[in-house]
Amino acid sequence: MLHRRLLKALSLASVVLASSVQADEGMWQPHQLQEISGKLKKAGLELDPTQMENLNQFPMNAIISLGGCTASFLSDQGLVVTNHHCAYGSIQYNSSEEENLLKQGFVAKSLDQELQAAPGSRVYVTESLTNVTDKITGTIPSSTKGEAYFKAIEKNEKALVAACETSQDYRCEVYSFHGGLEYFLIKQLSIRDVRLVYAPPSSIGKFGGDTDNWMWPRHTGDWAFYRAYVNKDGKPADYSKDNVPFKPKAFLKVNANGVENEDYVMVLGYPGRTNRYRIAQEVENQFNWVYPTAKRYREEYIDVIKETAPAGSEARIKYESTLAGLANYAKNYGSMIESFNKGDMLARKQKELKDLQAWINSSKARQEKYGKALTELNELVAQGQVNQERDLILAYIGRTNLIGVSKRLYRLANERQKPDAERKQGYQDRDMNRFKQGMKRVNRRYDAGVDKAVLNHFIAQYAQLPATERNATFDKFFGIDKTFDAKKLAAKLDQMHKDTELDQEAVRLAWMDKSVEDFKNSNDPYIQFAVSQYENDRKLEKQDDELFGKLAQVRPAFMSAMIAYKKSKGEPVYADANSSLRITYGNVKGYSPQDGLTATPFTTLEGMLAKYVAGDDEFDLFENIRTAIANKDYGNYRRESLNSVPVNYLSTLDITGGNSGSPTLNGKGEFVGLVFDGVYESIIGDWDYNPKLNRAIHTSVPFMLWTMEKIDGAQNIVDEMTIVK
Amino acid sequence: MLHRRLLKALSLASVVLASSVQADEGMWQPHQLQEISGKLKKAGLELDPTQMENLNQFPMNAIISLGGCTASFLSDQGLVVTNHHCAYGSIQYNSSEEENLLKQGFVAKSLDQELQAAPGSRVYVTESLTNVTDKITGTIPSSTKGEAYFKAIEKNEKALVAACETSQDYRCEVYSFHGGLEYFLIKQLSIRDVRLVYAPPSSIGKFGGDTDNWMWPRHTGDWAFYRAYVNKDGKPADYSKDNVPFKPKAFLKVNANGVENEDYVMVLGYPGRTNRYRIAQEVENQFNWVYPTAKRYREEYIDVIKETAPAGSEARIKYESTLAGLANYAKNYGSMIESFNKGDMLARKQKELKDLQAWINSSKARQEKYGKALTELNELVAQGQVNQERDLILAYIGRTNLIGVSKRLYRLANERQKPDAERKQGYQDRDMNRFKQGMKRVNRRYDAGVDKAVLNHFIAQYAQLPATERNATFDKFFGIDKTFDAKKLAAKLDQMHKDTELDQEAVRLAWMDKSVEDFKNSNDPYIQFAVSQYENDRKLEKQDDELFGKLAQVRPAFMSAMIAYKKSKGEPVYADANSSLRITYGNVKGYSPQDGLTATPFTTLEGMLAKYVAGDDEFDLFENIRTAIANKDYGNYRRESLNSVPVNYLSTLDITGGNSGSPTLNGKGEFVGLVFDGVYESIIGDWDYNPKLNRAIHTSVPFMLWTMEKIDGAQNIVDEMTIVK
Repeated sequence: MLHRRLLKALSLASVVLASSVQADEGMWQPHQLQEISGKLKKAGLELDPTQMENLNQFPMNAIISLGGCTASFLSDQGLVVTNHHCAYGSIQYNSSEEENLLKQGFVAKSLDQELQAAPGSRVYVTESLTNVTDKITGTIPSSTKGEAYFKAIEKNEKALVAACETSQDYRCEVYSFHGGLEYFLIKQLSIRDVRLVYAPPSSIGKFGGDTDNWMWPRHTGDWAFYRAYVNKDGKPADYSKDNVPFKPKAFLKVNANGVENEDYVMVLGYPGRTNRYRIAQEVENQFNWVYPTAKRYREEYIDVIKETAPAGSEARIKYESTLAGLANYAKNYGSMIESFNKGDMLARKQKELKDLQAWINSSKARQEKYGKALTELNELVAQGQVNQERDLILAYIGRTNLIGVSKRLYRLANERQKPDAERKQGYQDRDMNRFKQGMKRVNRRYDAGVDKAVLNHFIAQYAQLPATERNATFDKFFGIDKTFDAKKLAAKLDQMHKDTELDQEAVRLAWMDKSVEDFKNSNDPYIQFAVSQYENDRKLEKQDDELFGKLAQVRPAFMSAMIAYKKSKGEPVYADANSSLRITYGNVKGYSPQDGLTATPFTTLEGMLAKYVAGDDEFDLFENIRTAIANKDYGNYRRESLNSVPVNYLSTLDITGGNSGSPTLNGKGEFVGLVFDGVYESIIGDWDYNPKLNRAIHTSVPFMLWTMEKIDGAQNIVDEMTIVK
Repeated sequence: MLHRRLLKALSLASVVLASSVQADEGMWQPHQLQEISGKLKKAGLELDPTQMENLNQFPMNAIISLGGCTASFLSDQGLVVTNHHCAYGSIQYNSSEEENLLKQGFVAKSLDQELQAAPGSRVYVTESLTNVTDKITGTIPSSTKGEAYFKAIEKNEKALVAACETSQDYRCEVYSFHGGLEYFLIKQLSIRDVRLVYAPPSSIGKFGGDTDNWMWPRHTGDWAFYRAYVNKDGKPADYSKDNVPFKPKAFLKVNANGVENEDYVMVLGYPGRTNRYRIAQEVENQFNWVYPTAKRYREEYIDVIKETAPAGSEARIKYESTLAGLANYAKNYGSMIESFNKGDMLARKQKELKDLQAWINSSKARQEKYGKALTELNELVAQGQVNQERDLILAYIGRTNLIGVSKRLYRLANERQKPDAERKQGYQDRDMNRFKQGMKRVNRRYDAGVDKAVLNHFIAQYAQLPATERNATFDKFFGIDKTFDAKKLAAKLDQMHKDTELDQEAVRLAWMDKSVEDFKNSNDPYIQFAVSQYENDRKLEKQDDELFGKLAQVRPAFMSAMIAYKKSKGEPVYADANSSLRITYGNVKGYSPQDGLTATPFTTLEGMLAKYVAGDDEFDLFENIRTAIANKDYGNYRRESLNSVPVNYLSTLDITGGNSGSPTLNGKGEFVGLVFDGVYESIIGDWDYNPKLNRAIHTSVPFMLWTMEKIDGAQNIVDEMTIVK
């Protein structure tokens, strides 16, 4: 959502200053489990923590990534469970007007009925996880600084990845931890024949829709099943009728009783990104400027789309998912701002920073080792914020379709002049499939009128910045000077959208193969735009890389100080989430969202029925489920204490985006649910874990099995799993 | 809120068909306490129930009415406590721009600092309560039917009231119970020198404003103190410096600890109106037509006012309280519709009706006695609904100022031609003070532009009704015929508002003394309007009276059947609320407003502080209270289990409007709080008590005393009360 430059500045990430780790807080790397084994056992883990460090055996080998979501194996025949919202694209891909699988749901009664997942769908099975810090930063001479340091890291990363990716059967990636203090190379088997096995209707899988998103009480059956296929030799292969189900080294048994209040639970998965160790200056800027401004931009963006594309219009249909995304994060930022203003995160950060500094100052050795880190980091952070007003609004301008498309295409032409290994990440041969998919997708979400209206709106705001803060190259192209002329801009955009051919899929794909010269000779106004911005963009990128390189040295210095400081207090330190495999553990537990209210840990089928609104997009329910609930036809899944079937439940687990689809396990490592969301008050959890308010939302196994048996007719899938009680 | 005709049709009220009485349900008359004494004791009452039947001793004598609100004596010096919202008018009356008591609050440090309450303020001390059924209906020959029956009742009521009201020191009223099955004459001492003693600032007394109205969690300090004064002989008297505090026969001791979860509590007070015994046909019509339509009218009314009188305009200021009232009941109806649709009240009503009929049919004696009642009632109810579309929209048209003013004035001229005793209630000499106050108040809430806009809006809708359903007299005056001409109507209204002088207070008061002839000769267009409608209105009124008279015979027959049926099952029957003195008892208890959420029974000071929004009309807090909460300066009022001071609490008590200001008593009869609201889910309680969802909201004594001592500097008032622990 944020501009690439900001994102990068943020993402090298991770300094200091989370408050001392509470029980339930923490996204632990597998190799850390031994360090916290006492706590794990005390909390209720029955498995041997050391067993969980081994990626090639149960339970870790059952945990897989879908790229952006987590999933797990539930049978020895490659049966995969994840969230409905993680498989949404594949369900949509297989839907037509006549056979709307999103609406009706889908159950393959046998292997041959399973449907190909959406193009590009993958199941990634992590095979190894190697500390490569030495190979990434250990080999760089200490004299290397700034941009050169950044380039050196990039080069080393690429070399490791290239050596690791021996064929398309493997995907390798280097992950930085603690802001660059450590680097791990992760090697994953990449299974590319993925098929859709079962999805409940959206009225179950997406029950509550955007209204209930991030909310409790919740009643969503957010699950879907895939199957991973390989060739007869057990190797990843393109789709073929001859392929056979993949046999994982491990799969999870399903506990039909699910969980009770206070039970130990853990989630294994791939959380995306957290910012728990940011310094006070970053937190303050983020919550007092970035989030409020970005929230406003999103709300304006929504208004412009709604005004330009009235409800029901064809243009509006194209923008529904854009609108949902904009609104989703406007709500997200709103919650963060609300929580920030109510809470004391900033004060705690400031105090911890002060305590850390005092700890450093109290020893000459520490002074020598860490003394300059904080000052330097403060300076770099301040540098990174200098142009943030310009960058943020240009980021929203860049969200319009043709701006991004033209720039990416011209960048590709430039990168393709270099040998593959030297190209920018995202423009290498290994990226071309994704790149092409992106270019193909454009028209589904593009309308010239909306695109222009958004550009007119935000460029007019951008033009209000002082000239010194603007981007002169951008100004020149759009003719922005002292007096901004809205009519002139509108006329220019009209002409550009009239003349450009980038709104045609074939034209975009053709430009993927053209030369820099071709671009320079083009009359297409958007190609001309991209060419006109290129040199300056590279200059800005170089500045970013310089800053990035500096941060890549200073943040690790800080994290070293922080880790040493924490260890001196006997506190283990977990790294910020970075899309790598983590374990979080805690308990099933309610919370008080507000004085005078308690969120109880379970919801029930009756609560789901109470939300039913006939014909409503978000709260409709088919007659079969309504009747079953009304008749209390609970089968074996009735929970005595609830006099009903538990639907969703709350836990104290520390999760974030990317954990979607992660299995929830009990102390024995049995599958007891899927995590799929956090409550409204825990949205700020990406920055600050509050044990009183941070709650994850899980869908329960009894609800899943009940729905499969009584509602969706998916008994064959239940039978395939190993059910324990 | 509803048109007078409907209101009356509804208010003779009360048939059959509440479900069997649950614990906590019921608004009991004092003489019934013996009948339910077993239940009372079991619930936790320590006082002797028979003691509570006596109005002239503790605790009943401490319970007083303010007319519309309840209050109680808290000292032997006539100190009265009620809700802040019940004393609002008096606080406002004593406020000026320089000294805004609403905003700043007010504490009289000694008797001589106490301020006169708003004109018309009264303290009514109930002295006797006599069953007068024999004198009201017992003397009417059985051959008297319909309108004649109605007139006979009216005549008997007036005669009893006249005989009872020996001087202006007494106010007497006849109340009908069970739809006219029983009548009670209530005689009250009417104290007319009432003074304001203490009110917290609105930021405490009205904390949460309209947003929190009917909502939980709640944090409102909804209390204010009056003092009743009498002359040196102990008799009611007009305000005089020489008056002395009234010495009540009883007052309540204040329990400083308040209540704990599950504690027995009871509320003594004057609940206004409930409809628990309506038949299915009435319920269905009310929830499927009346409430949805009235809700829409209110929302449209609000829109018209807001469009015509933009925020901040002088006109808007005049309509703020009208807007609040409209919105308040739009929300109220919305909640009722929501609860109705979620619940099964109608099905239960239908079943109970069927069971009752079966019970009647199963005995020849019962068939003879009650056999026709249900059929007859169904017919009368259907009759009452025939013109409801016309009546409801004309009711909203009649809410505009000059329509109502002109009609009331002309009615007065007509009534004044008769001897006082024969005049319509509301137009007798005893009513003239109130009548005059009403005429004086008009301009505070009147703007010609808004008045016209509302009339244009609703008359246009009214004109869409078929001619046969419209009011021909009304149509004739406004020139409405087959084709409605909006411009013509607007021009007519412009002219009327330009020419009328009824928008002047002096002119209105002058018309109070004029003759029918004067009205007929007037050129004032609104006077002409009133004159033109008069004959037809009387004809309609006669029809109403006819129906009312019939209902006054049929409903009692039904209630007899219902009571006999209930008694056959051993169930005591309470009468619908009718503004007479009642007792409701139950326990302190939370509830689940929704699957997955629990409302805990207490809120705390921290929750109040968490709601604080600087400068917000509804959620502002002065610095002194914020500091005291932040410093946890709880004094003696800290509750161990909450680690804070309890602010508001929930109970199962069965209350409604009119109970506002009622004292909440514990089992010993000690004051443990003030009831001031019900939760959102209990709004439908006026029709149906749901033990799972019906919760009253009380302000706690610890919060009250803490605020008085620590925040408002009202120690002198605390000292005057008898505090027990």
